Amino acid sequence: MTAQLLDGNAVSAAIRAEVADEAAQLKATHGIVPGLATVLVGEDPASMTYVEMKQEQCRKAGMSAFERVLPEDVTQEGLEAAIAELNADPNVHGILVQLPLPDHLDEDRTLAAIALDKDVDGFHPTNVAKLALQDVEPAFAPCMPLGGIELLDRYGVEIHGKHAVVLGPSNIVGLPLALLLMNRGATLTVCHAHTADLPLLVRLGDIVVAAIDEPRMVKADWVKPGAAVIDVGWSRVKDETAKKGFRVVGNVDFDAVQEVAGYITPVPGGTGPMTIAMLLKNTLLSAKRHAGIE
Amino acid sequence: MTAQLLDGNAVSAAIRAEVADEAAQLKATHGIVPGLATVLVGEDPASMTYVEMKQEQCRKAGMSAFERVLPEDVTQEGLEAAIAELNADPNVHGILVQLPLPDHLDEDRTLAAIALDKDVDGFHPTNVAKLALQDVEPAFAPCMPLGGIELLDRYGVEIHGKHAVVLGPSNIVGLPLALLLMNRGATLTVCHAHTADLPLLVRLGDIVVAAIDEPRMVKADWVKPGAAVIDVGWSRVKDETAKKGFRVVGNVDFDAVQEVAGYITPVPGGTGPMTIAMLLKNTLLSAKRHAGIE
Repeated sequence: MTAQLLDGNAVSAAIRAEVADEAAQLKATHGIVPGLATVLVGEDPASMTYVEMKQEQCRKAGMSAFERVLPEDVTQEGLEAAIAELNADPNVHGILVQLPLPDHLDEDRTLAAIALDKDVDGFHPTNVAKLALQDVEPAFAPCMPLGGIELLDRYGVEIHGKHAVVLGPSNIVGLPLALLLMNRGATLTVCHAHTADLPLLVRLGDIVVAAIDEPRMVKADWVKPGAAVIDVGWSRVKDETAKKGFRVVGNVDFDAVQEVAGYITPVPGGTGPMTIAMLLKNTLLSAKRHAGIE
Repeated sequence: MTAQLLDGNAVSAAIRAEVADEAAQLKATHGIVPGLATVLVGEDPASMTYVEMKQEQCRKAGMSAFERVLPEDVTQEGLEAAIAELNADPNVHGILVQLPLPDHLDEDRTLAAIALDKDVDGFHPTNVAKLALQDVEPAFAPCMPLGGIELLDRYGVEIHGKHAVVLGPSNIVGLPLALLLMNRGATLTVCHAHTADLPLLVRLGDIVVAAIDEPRMVKADWVKPGAAVIDVGWSRVKDETAKKGFRVVGNVDFDAVQEVAGYITPVPGGTGPMTIAMLLKNTLLSAKRHAGIE
């Protein structure tokens, strides 16, 4: 048996097209153009690239992209003032502060300064709290975890009543994805790198999330036949046969696990491309809410 | 084998005595009397009783108890104004809004109005978010879940690297206790009432938390020999042999499970009495922090 690929490239392209359609419709019927503002402090090259990608995808979907670039030595007050302006700007429906921030800035305070109803990245403490709590919905959930759920939904993988096993409760991905799965009615097991009997526990999972930052850690005999495997890992490993001398792999031993699993995300091309697609989707959702037409 | 009782009556009495000692010392050395303010809206008899118990224990520990009783029809603004006054009052180190609130009031907004550093009940959204996230500490964790952890600690039950199984992720107890255990390095499984193979999963637990609101649901053959069992259930069941015609029982079939478990909380007398003790402890902690002597 070979697993069905959970194809993040194809699904994210479909979502971007849906968002573009809906954005065009929103403009035609209500004169509203959904707008995403990115806030970048300093000139970290990786952060600049991420922000640029988000801006570009935003424009491609027919949405407005606003950019605030602040100097490396901006004060906390200066950063919060920039956010306050965006909070008040009716053309801005989503605000994303690119992390990490320079050490002299307070990440908690900064995230809490974003208007809840524009927190499309889902890291405002009130949104995190609502993500954790049952029977309340956050205004927005974080984009990469949301992308994992969306992949399961698009391929018809049931969540309610299933057992989800999450390896690695990282604050950015593993933990929020675990909470999303739990709040969709999954029985949840969260494992750490130090967990004893890891293979035995992973084998309980109808859904397995590998977010443990160990290349190819999850082996074929750890996986229950037919399980859905979501790999959020991303590592470069040496590969003499590859043109660049390395290959990108995830936390799952893909070649072997795909023979056992029912569904599996490739790396690259799985959860990665879903992240920006969900950011666009959250921004569109916010624009519709602001117009009272959710 | 008969399990060691996790004796909430004895431990909570010890904690109350420790808090009273430390409060007396804080007064002698710094002239500070730790103060807890309770906010009660309306005249619900159960809520009035709970508030009265908290006030009484506070005074017994040599701490100040402040009381705000607001009319049933107080506006949201009125309630928040009362909280703002307590936030600003230097004699108040802890603020507890008794829940539930009447329907016309917004619980989320109300809890978020409490100063973070006086949120001794631990339900401010920023404290809930920090409870969920790894490697950050909430200012305060909720008292009943904290009481469960304290019982494990006082009896030397290790948490890190152990497997904790939580039945019922309720927002008030089960979920925060699950997050506390996970952030102490436990492998975590969270089960719902609808979880398949419940006995099998519970039997994986070195620590079992029963918070599922089903009298005596957890049976002896669900429990791994030697496990620590924390029962946060509380139900009245008919009992002709009892003087009042009923008995109070938990979610665990106590008589049978105590023959298998290594540690077990009785009901009553387990987690229940720990709650107010931890509230006093949080209030003392807050007073020390406000004085800069944590």
